[in-house]
Amino acid sequence: MTVITLTTDFGTGDHEAGVLKGVIWTIAPRVQIADLSHDITPHNILEAALLLWRVAPYFPDGTIHVAVVDPGVGTSRRGIAARLGSQYFVGPDNGLLTLLMSRVDGNNQEISIVHLDRPEYWLPEISDIFHGRDIFAPIAAHLALGIPLSSLGISINDPVKIEIPAPTRIPRGWHGQVIHIDHFGNLTTNLNLGHLKPTKEVMIKIKGEHIAGLVSAFGERPAGTLVALMDSSSSLAISVVNGNAAKVLNARVGDEIQVLIDDRVVNNYD
Amino acid sequence: MTVITLTTDFGTGDHEAGVLKGVIWTIAPRVQIADLSHDITPHNILEAALLLWRVAPYFPDGTIHVAVVDPGVGTSRRGIAARLGSQYFVGPDNGLLTLLMSRVDGNNQEISIVHLDRPEYWLPEISDIFHGRDIFAPIAAHLALGIPLSSLGISINDPVKIEIPAPTRIPRGWHGQVIHIDHFGNLTTNLNLGHLKPTKEVMIKIKGEHIAGLVSAFGERPAGTLVALMDSSSSLAISVVNGNAAKVLNARVGDEIQVLIDDRVVNNYD
Amino acid sequence: MTVITLTTDFGTGDHEAGVLKGVIWTIAPRVQIADLSHDITPHNILEAALLLWRVAPYFPDGTIHVAVVDPGVGTSRRGIAARLGSQYFVGPDNGLLTLLMSRVDGNNQEISIVHLDRPEYWLPEISDIFHGRDIFAPIAAHLALGIPLSSLGISINDPVKIEIPAPTRIPRGWHGQVIHIDHFGNLTTNLNLGHLKPTKEVMIKIKGEHIAGLVSAFGERPAGTLVALMDSSSSLAISVVNGNAAKVLNARVGDEIQVLIDDRVVNNYD
Repeated sequence: MTVITLTTDFGTGDHEAGVLKGVIWTIAPRVQIADLSHDITPHNILEAALLLWRVAPYFPDGTIHVAVVDPGVGTSRRGIAARLGSQYFVGPDNGLLTLLMSRVDGNNQEISIVHLDRPEYWLPEISDIFHGRDIFAPIAAHLALGIPLSSLGISINDPVKIEIPAPTRIPRGWHGQVIHIDHFGNLTTNLNLGHLKPTKEVMIKIKGEHIAGLVSAFGERPAGTLVALMDSSSSLAISVVNGNAAKVLNARVGDEIQVLIDDRVVNNYD
Repeated sequence: MTVITLTTDFGTGDHEAGVLKGVIWTIAPRVQIADLSHDITPHNILEAALLLWRVAPYFPDGTIHVAVVDPGVGTSRRGIAARLGSQYFVGPDNGLLTLLMSRVDGNNQEISIVHLDRPEYWLPEISDIFHGRDIFAPIAAHLALGIPLSSLGISINDPVKIEIPAPTRIPRGWHGQVIHIDHFGNLTTNLNLGHLKPTKEVMIKIKGEHIAGLVSAFGERPAGTLVALMDSSSSLAISVVNGNAAKVLNARVGDEIQVLIDDRVVNNYD
Repeated sequence: MTVITLTTDFGTGDHEAGVLKGVIWTIAPRVQIADLSHDITPHNILEAALLLWRVAPYFPDGTIHVAVVDPGVGTSRRGIAARLGSQYFVGPDNGLLTLLMSRVDGNNQEISIVHLDRPEYWLPEISDIFHGRDIFAPIAAHLALGIPLSSLGISINDPVKIEIPAPTRIPRGWHGQVIHIDHFGNLTTNLNLGHLKPTKEVMIKIKGEHIAGLVSAFGERPAGTLVALMDSSSSLAISVVNGNAAKVLNARVGDEIQVLIDDRVVNNYD
């Protein structure tokens, strides 16, 4: 049974998320629909891009991910559907796939993207307000029915990408930033295993605090301790054991972080 | 596979929403269950009625909608199940179906409503606290199994209706009000396409602000602009492009809005 | 079709809840997945234990409940899977099953628990951060595929239990406390039908207020009235009719409550 997932900034108190489900089941009654999140911060494309990048590897081949964070709806921004490796993605062409495409590309997996320009696969009436309902949900349902990607639109190779803040080298280490704060108050940074490998002998500076070394699990330190660790997506994260690092540090997305790596390791690394 | 949808004010942190799912699957193991929303403002019947009215047209024929916003549970208020056109609805008889019935009636579709008075289709023990679990979920599951509506209770034709604030005519236009504020801070009003047609040459006054004309898409104006548009349910809405109109205007449900229409159009319209 | 439920403190804005679904469907494509709640207060084991205890009786035989509130992830705390009566539970061994086991035990139903020590049923790579993804979701999926509990780990009979605050006798009644506050602001206490039976002639003291007698339904009193009642799980609850008792009383989990029962009844009761 094909799975269609939903990632939106619609919230959970209004009609939009439900409408997507109804549209999909009207066209493709036998698919499974999974809410990933409807609580993306309104219009925050990076947040949705990060979520998709983290979630997709755990879904079955053939899964169809619908992502609707769409501040440009009704403008000239394109709608797209894509096959990235073994999964499908449908949504506005505004950078939601930036991180996913980068990984799929790095893995030498195939990428096909079409500009959705075939209204016969959309709802009969198209608003300028809600393409999730009018275009993206119907397209996902038709993909689930087996309509080939190539029938849904013309092939393109210039999808919009958002700029993901990149870490920069500094003497003895890296300068990065907080790119996400999760429900527990953990701070996700744009530094990952590649920047720190092969050492845990690091000194981290963030918001005036110093953290020496990485832990492997929260339980290595007492409750309330500020720690750094590689999170479940292999990003460097700052946490408070059984607490909320964002509150403790008064941290926000965009805050700076410095990671100083042991000298000899840095020499090897360069 | 039949779809049963859930719309409640139970929130997402407690047991009630999950209990509904368990009760349904115990009786009808093969149905699909879709959360529409569990975040209706507690006891806000109008909010749930609006959501159902907006969502239902997009669901397949035969869908069964369970709506439990039920401040009168355990009193003499009736439980009802209804067939409105091609879909079913189950819940307390407190006005949740007011908007849906009005539309179905306007479309000359058939309406059948029964007062749920056959305990053989309920759970064995009935509380005075949680009829969603004890009565409405089991009724929805039995409908999904094919039990006819007429077997579930005695036919009635006097369902409770809530008063929906109606717009009133003023010189050169309409006086209406805000009836809902969504997750993005968009203000939904009780004015719709019928009140404005066939012109977009309107002047709108709300909270001391003046908005000239309607846009068709948010992208027609720069971010931060206060705009008016027909929303995805063809209601007049007030928005801030890529922003939050409710915050910008400090607006609430019940706030007044005036729409002044070009004179000649009003004359045609009367 | 087997149902797997999810109860976590992951929130609804991040990737974790979606990841669990993907992992499950990758292994067991035909199961139904039901979100019970992802809004358990972070690290609050009691809250999740209460939710599971309330929800489980309403799910079909064979349901598999995955519960991930896991502040000890990556430490020596065990992972467990259990059969309690006719249903299965998977999660960390930290007391999440305390209330369920107590009831199942009281009903003389069978309890089997295994310590999850067979990595062949986990994901290939195991983090110290996210055992919900790496261990518990795969175990639930394998249970759904029909792998016997006994194949998933070694049998244990010393699961961790959390201390549930117990009511104490006082002259003429009971002293208890608030153990949960729900979405409506209702206060759930650790007093239940067994403590009050067979009388409703009680005087309740909480936060300086006195409540005489129990109501059977909210509608027995006017809106805004402070009332006491047996809730839908047969726990004594304090509510405000169509209002929010937690706000009115400025109440918190842990607040004390006294129930004074009519003298003669208490004498019979002792």
